[in-house]
Amino acid sequence: MTAPRPFNFSAGPAALPEPVLRQVAEEMLDWHGSGMSVMEMSHRGKEFGTILAAAEADLRELLAVPPNYRVLFMQGGGLGENAIVPMNLSRGGKVDVVVTGSWSRKSAGEARRYADVQIAADIGKTGVIPREWALRDDAAYVHVCSNETIDGVEFQELPELTHGVPLVIDASSHLLSRPIDWRRVGLAFGGAQKNIGPAGLTLVFVREDLLGHALSICPSAFNYETVAANQSMFNTPPTFAIYVAGLVFQWVKGLEYAGRRGLAAVEQRNIDKAALLYAALDGSSFYENRVDPSCRSRMNVPFFLKNEALNDTFLAEARAAGLLQLKGHKSVGGMRASIYNAMPLEGVQALVGFLKDFEVRHG
Amino acid sequence: MTAPRPFNFSAGPAALPEPVLRQVAEEMLDWHGSGMSVMEMSHRGKEFGTILAAAEADLRELLAVPPNYRVLFMQGGGLGENAIVPMNLSRGGKVDVVVTGSWSRKSAGEARRYADVQIAADIGKTGVIPREWALRDDAAYVHVCSNETIDGVEFQELPELTHGVPLVIDASSHLLSRPIDWRRVGLAFGGAQKNIGPAGLTLVFVREDLLGHALSICPSAFNYETVAANQSMFNTPPTFAIYVAGLVFQWVKGLEYAGRRGLAAVEQRNIDKAALLYAALDGSSFYENRVDPSCRSRMNVPFFLKNEALNDTFLAEARAAGLLQLKGHKSVGGMRASIYNAMPLEGVQALVGFLKDFEVRHG
Repeated sequence: MTAPRPFNFSAGPAALPEPVLRQVAEEMLDWHGSGMSVMEMSHRGKEFGTILAAAEADLRELLAVPPNYRVLFMQGGGLGENAIVPMNLSRGGKVDVVVTGSWSRKSAGEARRYADVQIAADIGKTGVIPREWALRDDAAYVHVCSNETIDGVEFQELPELTHGVPLVIDASSHLLSRPIDWRRVGLAFGGAQKNIGPAGLTLVFVREDLLGHALSICPSAFNYETVAANQSMFNTPPTFAIYVAGLVFQWVKGLEYAGRRGLAAVEQRNIDKAALLYAALDGSSFYENRVDPSCRSRMNVPFFLKNEALNDTFLAEARAAGLLQLKGHKSVGGMRASIYNAMPLEGVQALVGFLKDFEVRHG
Repeated sequence: MTAPRPFNFSAGPAALPEPVLRQVAEEMLDWHGSGMSVMEMSHRGKEFGTILAAAEADLRELLAVPPNYRVLFMQGGGLGENAIVPMNLSRGGKVDVVVTGSWSRKSAGEARRYADVQIAADIGKTGVIPREWALRDDAAYVHVCSNETIDGVEFQELPELTHGVPLVIDASSHLLSRPIDWRRVGLAFGGAQKNIGPAGLTLVFVREDLLGHALSICPSAFNYETVAANQSMFNTPPTFAIYVAGLVFQWVKGLEYAGRRGLAAVEQRNIDKAALLYAALDGSSFYENRVDPSCRSRMNVPFFLKNEALNDTFLAEARAAGLLQLKGHKSVGGMRASIYNAMPLEGVQALVGFLKDFEVRHG
C-alpha cells in the first residue's frame, strides 16, 4: 500500500485525500478505543454524537456559516433535493430558475411538480452565463446551480439578488472548494460525493426564516424543519459517511499551500490547478474547452479532442499512465477532468504532461 | 487489532461481521487493483457496476427473490419509506395498517399525508399480535411491520391476505435474518443498518405490477418505477454502503452452523440465540420480557430489571464486561439486546452468563 496511487479524475463519487482513507482503514475495527467500528455505533450514542458535533463545528468554521443558518445532514443527493427544496420552500407558488447547464435544467423540471416554474434565463449553447434574468418579485425563491458538473460552468461570484427573493444554490460539485458569500444565499445544498465524502450524504444549509413552510405532502424525513429540530437525527443519518466527511473537514483545516492554510489554501490550490489545465488546453489546437473564460469551472473541466476518433486511444493511454476516469459525461461526450479538493497539483501537472505528450505522438 | 472485540448489542446501526470489517479496511486504498477506494469510484464505471450486480445477485439468491420482483437500492431509511411507500402505492386511496408497536404506528401517521388510513388492528399493551383485523376490500395495500425493533414483536409467519390486497412489510430490523414468503408479500423494505450494512442504504423489493402508480407529487428520486428503470442509478446511489452490504451477503452465503449453510445457517443460529436469551429471562424472577412468546422477536429482546434502580449499575457493569449498547429505547426504558445476524452465539452466551452473575450479586 506504499506505491503511489494513480490520479483519479472522477466527477463523483470522486477522489478522497489519501490520509483520510488511511485513517478510515486504521479505525475500521475500533474507533478511539470504543471497541466498535463507526458503522456499528448507535447514532444516539455518545461516540457518534461526538463525531457529528465535531463535523458540524468544523464545517461551520471552514465555511464561516452564520449562526442563523442550520446545517442539515440528509440523504437523497442533489436529485433528491431537486424535489425536497420546492416541497419545503415553494409554498406551492412561483419559482424562478436560471439554467446554466444540465443540473439546473433538471432542477427546473422537478420543481414543476410543486410550483409554477419560470426559466429566468438560459445559457443554451452560448457557453456564457446570461446577464439578463427575468425575475418575478413574488417568486418564493430563485434557483441556480453554482457549479455545473457536466457542463463545466461555474459562477465565479454568486448573484446579488435585490428584489427580496431568497437565492437557492445547488453547490454540489464545488461545495467546500471556496468560500460562500452567505449574504447572498438563503439555502445551499450539495451531495457529499465531490469534495466531502462518500455518496449518500447530502448537506443542506438553510437560513432559519425559510424553515416551517413545507407543503403538507413533504415527507417528515425530508422536512427541513423536522430535520433541524432533531439535529439531523429524525431518521438514522448516514453515520459512516458523516464520519468520513468529518475527517475530510479536518484535512481541509490542516492543508497548507502557498502560505495559506485551510479553506484559503484549498481555494488557492484549486485556482492554480484550474489555471494550469485551462492554459494547456487553450495553448493547443489539438484540444478544446468550449466554456467562456468568465465562467469556467475550477472543479470540472470538460474538453474535447478535435479528432474525436482518438478518444478511445486517449483514454486507454491515460489509464496506462495512471490517470483515471477521464471520460466525459455521456450527454456531452469527449473528456472531463474533475479536479476537486483532493486532487493534488501534481495530478494536474501529470495530466498536462500527458496532454502534451499525447499531442506530440498523435497530433 | 487481534484482541477479541467486545459484543455489541446495538439496535442499529449495529454490529457487522468482523471478517467484513477487515476486508473493508484492507481494500480501503485500492479495490481489486483498481487504484481506487470504492468511495472514489464513479457509480457508472465498470468497477462499481460489478459490485452492484454482485450484491443484487447474491441478495436475490439468499432471499430467493422471484424474477417478477425488482430490488432497489435507495436512500432515506425506514422513516423515508413511510412516505415513499404511500406516494408510490396508495393512489391517494385507502391504506390499512396493523399496529404492532412504535414503527407501524409511525408508518400509519406518515401515510395519512397521502391516503385514507385505517388502523386495522392495534396491539395496544397486550404484548400479543391481534388475530382479528378490520380490512377493507378496496384498500391499496395493507401495511405491517414484520419486526418491531423497539417493542421486540415479530411476526413468526407473515399474514396470508385473502382479499386480493397487496401486503407491504417494513422488514427493516429482521431483513436477511430468515426467509421471506414472497407469495404473501407485494413490497418489502428495510434500512440496511441492522443485518446488512451501514446506515444510509435502504433496500426495497417490489412486485412489478405495483410499479407505475406513483402520485404526481412523488419525487423522481423516490419513484420506484424511475429507480427501477435506472437500475438504482437515477441518482448517485450510496455506493460504499452497497459495497459493504455486498460483502455481508457474501459472508451470509458462506456461514456454516449446525450442519446448515447460508441463510438457513443464519436463521438457525438466530433461533438458537433467541431461545437461549429468552430462557434465561423467563427462568429468572429478576428480569422480565413482556412480549407474548408467540410473537417474540428473534432480533430485538427488550427486557427489564424488576428493580429498575439497578439500571445504571447494570449498564456500567455490562460495559465493563465487554457487552455494549444494552440500554433500552428511550420510549420504553429498561434494556434491549439486539442480536442480529452478526452476533455470534458466544455473544449471547456471554450476555446470559452476565445476567446470571449480575442477579447473584444484586438479587
